[in-house]
Amino acid sequence: MGNVKFTPISEIGEFGLIDRLSENINIKHTETKMGIGDDAAVLSISKDFDHLVSTDMLVGGVHFDITYAPLKHVGYKSIVTNISDICAMNGLPTHALISIAVPNKYSVEMIEEVYMGIKLACDNYAIDLIGGDTTASSGPLIISITIFGKTESQRVTYRSGSKPNDVLVVTGNLGAAYLGLQILERENSIFQENKLSQPNLSAYSYLLERQLKPEPRIDVIKIFKKLNIVPTSMIDISDGLSSELIHLSNSSGLGLKVFANQIPISDETKKTSKELNLDPLVCALHGGEDYELLLTLSLNDYEKIKDVSVFSAIGHTVKQKDHRVELFTGGNGSINLKEEGWDPFKKKPNI
Amino acid sequence: MGNVKFTPISEIGEFGLIDRLSENINIKHTETKMGIGDDAAVLSISKDFDHLVSTDMLVGGVHFDITYAPLKHVGYKSIVTNISDICAMNGLPTHALISIAVPNKYSVEMIEEVYMGIKLACDNYAIDLIGGDTTASSGPLIISITIFGKTESQRVTYRSGSKPNDVLVVTGNLGAAYLGLQILERENSIFQENKLSQPNLSAYSYLLERQLKPEPRIDVIKIFKKLNIVPTSMIDISDGLSSELIHLSNSSGLGLKVFANQIPISDETKKTSKELNLDPLVCALHGGEDYELLLTLSLNDYEKIKDVSVFSAIGHTVKQKDHRVELFTGGNGSINLKEEGWDPFKKKPNI
Repeated sequence: MGNVKFTPISEIGEFGLIDRLSENINIKHTETKMGIGDDAAVLSISKDFDHLVSTDMLVGGVHFDITYAPLKHVGYKSIVTNISDICAMNGLPTHALISIAVPNKYSVEMIEEVYMGIKLACDNYAIDLIGGDTTASSGPLIISITIFGKTESQRVTYRSGSKPNDVLVVTGNLGAAYLGLQILERENSIFQENKLSQPNLSAYSYLLERQLKPEPRIDVIKIFKKLNIVPTSMIDISDGLSSELIHLSNSSGLGLKVFANQIPISDETKKTSKELNLDPLVCALHGGEDYELLLTLSLNDYEKIKDVSVFSAIGHTVKQKDHRVELFTGGNGSINLKEEGWDPFKKKPNI
Repeated sequence: MGNVKFTPISEIGEFGLIDRLSENINIKHTETKMGIGDDAAVLSISKDFDHLVSTDMLVGGVHFDITYAPLKHVGYKSIVTNISDICAMNGLPTHALISIAVPNKYSVEMIEEVYMGIKLACDNYAIDLIGGDTTASSGPLIISITIFGKTESQRVTYRSGSKPNDVLVVTGNLGAAYLGLQILERENSIFQENKLSQPNLSAYSYLLERQLKPEPRIDVIKIFKKLNIVPTSMIDISDGLSSELIHLSNSSGLGLKVFANQIPISDETKKTSKELNLDPLVCALHGGEDYELLLTLSLNDYEKIKDVSVFSAIGHTVKQKDHRVELFTGGNGSINLKEEGWDPFKKKPNI
């Protein structure tokens, strides 16, 4: 490479790399309402609807580990991951394309297993599988998915629309998928030491389901439509609540006040994190892989859903020049959250 | 895997695998006019236009070799490959999404090189780059592209529409990209033996450009529009003329008569194939990577373009129950073409 500079990618991380690659991209078509920079691109190509497009690449050994994730689940989850990006724009999925790079040692039957999961997710969520590519891989299994969705033009929700004093809301509960992964890794290392061991996983079934067979928040998008709610901003938090709070704050140009004791954590998560000597709050903030949504609502819209159990108000937006995300941890204590989401180019977050 | 059957993928090949994976796919949305089965999917989501979508995955060591292909060219060509699929539906490209899995040893600057090629191709062909994903790869460099295009609804051209006695036409000339690759591989092995050798590639510049920086047939699509021509069928032939003749014949349910001496081969291809002891006709039939189009025209439409140099009539369609592709090789001789296109799961065609 001669005198060309060599900057390791780990030095700038995934988001630093995306920032550099996104420079000098020219948008030429007026129908492109949003390109790179949100959970999905937004195309205005039909009269009443905006079309949403998102893509994700999942790499064996980086995003999933087939020593403990069944291939059918890997396929299913790859679709769910993408649906979650469409939901984060307040849309419902419609079409998908799947490309797979197949390691040499894989059989036809193994790829069919992956596809069974993909087709099941497409059938469960009314998605037409309209194309793809299959090719050989000299490395790991790689699945690349492009998903389409749509929503009425006036219902599209970006990361950037929240106003001061909006209510900050999260769906479902957090931390469970991360603990599911810890259990799988623990059982796998026990099995590696003693191949005759029989894991007893029944006590962890909820956590394992959150890790292996997550479901996207289609139900939430349908509730919004039914109650005529349009969130002022929304983001998928599968990379971790903490990093996405910071993204939402930066995109909206507002500060966030977050109350730790309001962050929804299931009883199973609390129990197992105690068993594993982990702090459940840290799992909820940084664990990731919970296919939940973080959003802001006007007070008026919040009134409509405040008694619906899937939603938890965890704080509110504030005018603030430096877009601080302040986490109140009880008593008078508060800390400023810093970006610590999952990054495929860096090590796992230090939990 | 217990008693599960193990069928090596090489036993059924890429198209056999696609056939098995495409079984039992349910189409649920009426706007899906074409799913899997042509060069691109066709979505009827706006009033006057049909939208086209295609995806391709390119794997280092399988589809390109960075020992002799500059990274910028790899990026450029990855977009061209996809544009060609949109052209094959008689459309023009509009939007693209790019996902890249990056090997650990790559620097930020190397990925920026790939992206420079991608952006250049997007600028040259009026494509909005609207999204993507970047992730770490434990294996080779992998580029996955999804491309969108559009065309007026009544102009969409499938593989399947040809009628008996249509003229069979191919664009450009064939075999050059394959010979460009042979030259690069020859120079690379000379270099590996003697690192001080200086390759003199100037005599092969046309062939190398066809291999390293191909251009898609946007010009052809514009000619069709200007002359009010809609081909009765069309297919991209970057996997090789021979295999795509068979695909076109099978899709249309017709036989094809092809005249070998009408297949367009450039002087450079003839000269270099002689130097390398290769048969130029075999390179043109099986070499692949020529981003040209194979199409059928009614006699009436053919009259409009018969003097335009980019088009060569190479034969015609015939009613035939067994969809034979008969290649007339001169004198009274003819042979039946069998599928021998490039397949990433098999060895390269035996040329």
